[in-house]
Amino acid sequence: MVGTVFLGGRVTRGKKLFTPGPLGTSHTVKKAMLKDVGSRDVEFVDTVKYLRNEIIKMQSRVILNLIIMATSFNATMVDNTQEQLTCGVELSDFTCIPMQGSGTYAVESVFQSAGPSPQGKVLILENGAYGKRMKKICELMQLPFFIASFPENEIVDLSRVEKILEKDDSFTMVSIVHCETSSGVINPVESIGEVVKRFLPDSIYFVDAMSSFGAIPIDLEKGNIDFLVTSANKCLEGVPGFSLVIARLNKLLVCEGKSRTLSLDLFDQYEGLEKSGQFRFTPATHSMLAFKQALHQFNDEGRADNIIREYQENREILRKGMRELGFEEFLDKSHEGYIITSYQFPKDPNFDFTKFYQLLNDKGQVIYPGKVLDAECFRIGNIGHLFPDDMRHLLRCLSDVCKEMGLKLRS
Amino acid sequence: MVGTVFLGGRVTRGKKLFTPGPLGTSHTVKKAMLKDVGSRDVEFVDTVKYLRNEIIKMQSRVILNLIIMATSFNATMVDNTQEQLTCGVELSDFTCIPMQGSGTYAVESVFQSAGPSPQGKVLILENGAYGKRMKKICELMQLPFFIASFPENEIVDLSRVEKILEKDDSFTMVSIVHCETSSGVINPVESIGEVVKRFLPDSIYFVDAMSSFGAIPIDLEKGNIDFLVTSANKCLEGVPGFSLVIARLNKLLVCEGKSRTLSLDLFDQYEGLEKSGQFRFTPATHSMLAFKQALHQFNDEGRADNIIREYQENREILRKGMRELGFEEFLDKSHEGYIITSYQFPKDPNFDFTKFYQLLNDKGQVIYPGKVLDAECFRIGNIGHLFPDDMRHLLRCLSDVCKEMGLKLRS
Ligand SMILES: Cc1ncc(COP(=O)(O)O)c(C=O)c1O
Ligand SMILES: Cc1ncc(COP(=O)(O)O)c(C=O)c1O
Repeated sequence: MVGTVFLGGRVTRGKKLFTPGPLGTSHTVKKAMLKDVGSRDVEFVDTVKYLRNEIIKMQSRVILNLIIMATSFNATMVDNTQEQLTCGVELSDFTCIPMQGSGTYAVESVFQSAGPSPQGKVLILENGAYGKRMKKICELMQLPFFIASFPENEIVDLSRVEKILEKDDSFTMVSIVHCETSSGVINPVESIGEVVKRFLPDSIYFVDAMSSFGAIPIDLEKGNIDFLVTSANKCLEGVPGFSLVIARLNKLLVCEGKSRTLSLDLFDQYEGLEKSGQFRFTPATHSMLAFKQALHQFNDEGRADNIIREYQENREILRKGMRELGFEEFLDKSHEGYIITSYQFPKDPNFDFTKFYQLLNDKGQVIYPGKVLDAECFRIGNIGHLFPDDMRHLLRCLSDVCKEMGLKLRS
Repeated sequence: MVGTVFLGGRVTRGKKLFTPGPLGTSHTVKKAMLKDVGSRDVEFVDTVKYLRNEIIKMQSRVILNLIIMATSFNATMVDNTQEQLTCGVELSDFTCIPMQGSGTYAVESVFQSAGPSPQGKVLILENGAYGKRMKKICELMQLPFFIASFPENEIVDLSRVEKILEKDDSFTMVSIVHCETSSGVINPVESIGEVVKRFLPDSIYFVDAMSSFGAIPIDLEKGNIDFLVTSANKCLEGVPGFSLVIARLNKLLVCEGKSRTLSLDLFDQYEGLEKSGQFRFTPATHSMLAFKQALHQFNDEGRADNIIREYQENREILRKGMRELGFEEFLDKSHEGYIITSYQFPKDPNFDFTKFYQLLNDKGQVIYPGKVLDAECFRIGNIGHLFPDDMRHLLRCLSDVCKEMGLKLRS
């Protein structure tokens, strides 16, 4: 039924994914996978080197963007700064380590590698499912932790974090999720990092920026972030197969020998990459070729400069359209996140999520179930290879489905 | 330099990989990746179900092949047996669990999930690098183990295994590699499994069949094998991105709650797949679509029936040609493995492996460095999308490179 879908002038195969990953990627990205390369061959070693460098460079560009936003640089100054920044010198404090497996593997690799020490103790700041997953990892590792839970529909509260740290300064690590993809909340990871630094100058500050990295600027320096994880398959628009850890070198180097697992040993992986440019174990070569292409589009073809605006535009079309249809957001209307939106299940007795999902699916539109505990929700993502026409087409399909199901959403 | 290579009537892009993985795959397999699917969508859930079932069915076929080899069934009988076996009933004692990450992740997931128990103790039977990797995993896990080492150029010796088990019957797990890809040695995992069962009826017997599964028959029942691991990207000819564990159900079900890692928890992964048909975490959807196509070619298009003969033919051409060129095998000439061959570095003072590798590479032929400790070797694999013409072309390139380097190999 849904073979080749013709949407707003773009030919795409299969369905449109309004999900937080795996998400839609460009055809060029996928086409880069039509090739087998040896994992120890120079072409692949160069690919790995390229992507590790580009991720670090991207961080420089984030800082540049923040500077541009905050001041009124003239064009020449911007160019000069860009020149200086993209040579990567400013950020040589950090390194990028691709890890096999999905985002969770990267998250766990940080806990397994940097977490355990004879006196290790983690403070988890949590307001959703991905924060709770951090708890599960610590439990399984038998790593002492304290979990501070915040309401799912609010950001992590800075003053409460201060109070916790005033009372107990024995933590060796503080962890938090940037965009809680379960709800769409964006946590103020930079301000929290400043507080962490003030109370615990020697601790490790760990940010899970899985679904936001690349599209919501994060200043690692300002936020005192030591480890940040993201995925090849979120805002950088590659295909799934591996994840990425950005690590502050001096915090990484002391991880040697700490991990109790070989596969998830971040230090060992880093050392292998530095020594030979190679993965320790057979990597997902095709996913990495796709990612190289994705980064190329991102950095060289200028997507990086537009992605914030484009995602915001997608989100705005969605938000407006959904309000018009009568759907209610889970988060307060003032919330500014532009990655994914949680919608409350309509009160209409005719609403049945499975049917709703299926009818949309039949029209080639894949949305996502909810993941908050306190309310019945579904989610619509607007990241990946999605454009205004795709959002508008989704809204038309949603409108049709509401009619087919006989939903009366507007009071 | 090497763009589109025209080899023996086949058009292929990029270089030919004579490696043990990532290896060459068919264009159809790679083309299956030109699609983004949602990981919670029915199409993907069906893909996962299909591949889990096919792997178990394949095991039935292995038994069938063994029966055919051992007896002289007539055609009707074979057909009937095939019918009975491929319905999968006979092997419902086993389940297949795809795990994210490369083969090592699958190997470690077995140790992490089935290994640790308050009284856990592993016997590792080792004759090469992949056996030694098992040791490293146990060391990091702080799992008590005894490693019995055997010469790299010989198979694991059954009578010594008997002697070890006569003296010490306190092991809860015995692990071994089937095809030690570092040398090419094929260990007698079935006979060893019989010995293990005799001495340790309740222990777990774990076989790493990474580079042999699909191409060298293994009878799980006869060998009393409880856990077997392989990769999407060896003899099943998919692309890398995930690995596979075949687990005996009654041994798997007691693993609940044992793992100290979330990502590598085999039981948790199994439970997730059984409950919802979904992965716990974002899987490498594209690699799995490729694997579905690879399995389709393997099982439905008949590759399974020919793969042994085809790999053996590849190997025979290689072996004969290499002997003619004057290269010497690392293993005794009587060795029958047909996955990968280790060759000793020629004694000729003009031989320099880096140069040798590079010159072959320039001709689009990717070979593999050695991985044995006791001798300087290189390796040539003959698995994956490789055919007699490819092997012959490689031999011509090898001959040219020998001339270019001025190597005199024949005395
Ligand atoms: C914030 C966050 N953390 C962790 C994860 C887990 O990533 P994965 O599903 O790739 O393991 C996700 C996935 O969406 C996420 O959004
Ligand atoms: C026998 C064996 N075990 C384990 C591995 C490790 O697999 P991977 O490199 O996919 O992690 C390999 C890889 O070739 C292998 O041949």
